[in-house]
Amino acid sequence: MKRTMFILVLVLNFLPKINAQDETKVLKAFFDEALTDQTAYENLRYLCKNYNGRITGSPQAEAAVEFTFQLMNDMNLDRVEKQPVQVPRWVRGEDETASIQSAKFGFKDVPVTALGMSIGTGKNGLSAKVIEVQNFKQLEELGKENIDGKIVFFNRAMDPTMINTFGAYGGAADQRTRGAARAGAFGAVGVLVRSLTTSQDDFPHTGVMRYNDTVQQIPAVAISTNGANLLSDWLKNDPDLNFNFRTTSYELPEVTSHNVIGEIRGSELPEEIITIGGHLDAWEPGEGAHDDGAGCMQSIEVLRLFQKLGIQPKRTIRAVVFMDEEVAQRGGKEYARQAALKKENHYFALEADRGALMPRGFGVSAPDERLEKILALKEYFEPYGITHFKKGGGGVDIGPLKQFGTPLSSFVPDMQRYFDFHHSGNDTFEQVNFREFQMGSAAIASFIYLIDKYDL
Amino acid sequence: MKRTMFILVLVLNFLPKINAQDETKVLKAFFDEALTDQTAYENLRYLCKNYNGRITGSPQAEAAVEFTFQLMNDMNLDRVEKQPVQVPRWVRGEDETASIQSAKFGFKDVPVTALGMSIGTGKNGLSAKVIEVQNFKQLEELGKENIDGKIVFFNRAMDPTMINTFGAYGGAADQRTRGAARAGAFGAVGVLVRSLTTSQDDFPHTGVMRYNDTVQQIPAVAISTNGANLLSDWLKNDPDLNFNFRTTSYELPEVTSHNVIGEIRGSELPEEIITIGGHLDAWEPGEGAHDDGAGCMQSIEVLRLFQKLGIQPKRTIRAVVFMDEEVAQRGGKEYARQAALKKENHYFALEADRGALMPRGFGVSAPDERLEKILALKEYFEPYGITHFKKGGGGVDIGPLKQFGTPLSSFVPDMQRYFDFHHSGNDTFEQVNFREFQMGSAAIASFIYLIDKYDL
Repeated sequence: MKRTMFILVLVLNFLPKINAQDETKVLKAFFDEALTDQTAYENLRYLCKNYNGRITGSPQAEAAVEFTFQLMNDMNLDRVEKQPVQVPRWVRGEDETASIQSAKFGFKDVPVTALGMSIGTGKNGLSAKVIEVQNFKQLEELGKENIDGKIVFFNRAMDPTMINTFGAYGGAADQRTRGAARAGAFGAVGVLVRSLTTSQDDFPHTGVMRYNDTVQQIPAVAISTNGANLLSDWLKNDPDLNFNFRTTSYELPEVTSHNVIGEIRGSELPEEIITIGGHLDAWEPGEGAHDDGAGCMQSIEVLRLFQKLGIQPKRTIRAVVFMDEEVAQRGGKEYARQAALKKENHYFALEADRGALMPRGFGVSAPDERLEKILALKEYFEPYGITHFKKGGGGVDIGPLKQFGTPLSSFVPDMQRYFDFHHSGNDTFEQVNFREFQMGSAAIASFIYLIDKYDL
Repeated sequence: MKRTMFILVLVLNFLPKINAQDETKVLKAFFDEALTDQTAYENLRYLCKNYNGRITGSPQAEAAVEFTFQLMNDMNLDRVEKQPVQVPRWVRGEDETASIQSAKFGFKDVPVTALGMSIGTGKNGLSAKVIEVQNFKQLEELGKENIDGKIVFFNRAMDPTMINTFGAYGGAADQRTRGAARAGAFGAVGVLVRSLTTSQDDFPHTGVMRYNDTVQQIPAVAISTNGANLLSDWLKNDPDLNFNFRTTSYELPEVTSHNVIGEIRGSELPEEIITIGGHLDAWEPGEGAHDDGAGCMQSIEVLRLFQKLGIQPKRTIRAVVFMDEEVAQRGGKEYARQAALKKENHYFALEADRGALMPRGFGVSAPDERLEKILALKEYFEPYGITHFKKGGGGVDIGPLKQFGTPLSSFVPDMQRYFDFHHSGNDTFEQVNFREFQMGSAAIASFIYLIDKYDL
């Protein structure tokens, strides 16, 4: 009892003009509408089922741009735009194959997928002995004499004891992003990376990697966690086994793609822009449902919710469907570059790129005074079990807006399941629950509504 | 900042002896162990895949009892017991079939499943005209002249705007539990009930129903939400369409089954018992993964976690795997009856029967002074995103312990996805995420550990 009163005092102190009862009703209206309307969910289904394989620069990605543009065009928004963006184009090629060939244990196919931007092995594949390492330090200790001519197998797992699974991801991602460059420097002929997932299963998880200009490029693939465990077991008793894999990925010249922007013009301060965004490009295989078709469709749904409730925002609210988050982050950079050219005033930005799982809250990076006021909004969200209002927000696509001093915010869903799907064939529409997805849409709409209305 | 200090003061006030730093380490050890060990998850897989269809009184249920008994027997516990329980036995019979036959729209198969304890239609099935209603009031308004000889179609959906989905379930469940008795009184020949789920899909969801002794028994089935929507649409333009369904369910005499009990004896107060439980019986089709194989395996995992961490509880901690939660709740009643006969002292009880979804916290029913202390434990769980510590707990199986004044508690996972699975063919092991499941095990172990150690 005492505690509740204490918090209420805080809120009233920060937000003297908020009529708590009225706003409670508005938030309930956002949630009620979101939980009873299938539009956004069906749009996500359509995107996933018809524009699978929409990797940056691909024809599928551009078809998805057109679909999204038409979707917003049909919404009677104040402005819809396709903003050209120059993007890299990497092609996965044929389905990858891999196998372990052990004189002791026999022959076993294992699931692999090329890492994004990796060169291919060539049509005949690559076969070599394997050396397993946990990290770059171990690589250096082994040195060229132990690595030369071999496939380096990076097998460090994401730390399962970290409750913050994004932290666990960050703690293991260097193997994927820089493993080939580091191993190549010691004469490795290929790289095999344990999939970055908290799940034990047969899905390989891809993601971008980068070469180093001074090192010979070698092909790199991710192997499923089950495959990695098996390989590691066999290696213990048969260090001379051979690993074979075949990838036919290659790069093509850059192409023009687009960010898709739709906006509701502000009634009082139309020059002040609030950006809400996700990214449209996605790794194949998989449908890019959680990463990040969901964030795109939730951003667009926020505009629909404002329209449906007849709420006219004071500021201009934009849903931005970014292109090329996964490979070179060109969409976010171009959006900010255009904003600078046009001298746009970016009041606030939110990125939804952590999956359509149960909303837990928001992370916010803003000057202290604004931050304190924004975090105090927590009270309004507690009836929905949404209690994570913490310092520290942003995202790859909205990050470049930081140059304008724009407060940056992350939509934060629950993160325990996210890496089951992330960058894998398991990231399908069926893995998105309607209620979790739409509670996210309503939470973002509510958050943006309060920030706009109370000038936070 | 102020707020955190305020809560800390509260905690210290209630729990003068808690060494916050030490207990933070113990809780982390519970979570670390749970998140790195696959035992409980693999046991759940085995239960789901080998003892599917373990409805109360069935041979599969008794085989699952034996499996669970052996599981605990192999754990080096202080006592393991199969406690005999007399249970009803209802048999579903052959796979159900149903179809809509419309002169206007044609013929369409739709998915149905017999409600638990319903009589069958007989081998030839049942065919009749349909009358759709939303509730019992409408049934009474229509009266015998409009209902006699027809199939009553109860089509009231769970309210999608309720964030508490268990509340939405409660608000629609009367159609399933009492629909046949109420419709039968007006001469209905059968009952069709919209599945109690928040999902729009093709799974029919079953659950128990009860007849009224004074009314003719009529067969009752659940229809999938997609099927219900289609039927409702067709009825609008063809009220004379026929519905046909065939079920061959029947009842057999009661049989003896068992609760399975395993315990770690208390070191200081062995006569004081803390019960943690779930139920082993489950509806078919489906594997009873979330409902409630998970709760059983989490309860047993709590004992393993205490053993693994070398924590000797002051009180006796029991994992109780109850039989017959779904049909007649005999397991819970018998457990309490035996407790009374043996004059056992039940200090605390917790039920885990809401699925293995992301843990949100605990509901507790206890005298005010104990309640306040227990709810203050919240602070320890916040690093795990577990923040729901609220008044009001219990469950069907531990409910009968209330007669002893035992404080009753519910493990409360997130509830947005639960009714996607509940009582349907969709309740399979694959729907249980390892991390969400094991964060639940660790949360329960931590909660029970603190309650025992600090005499809450």
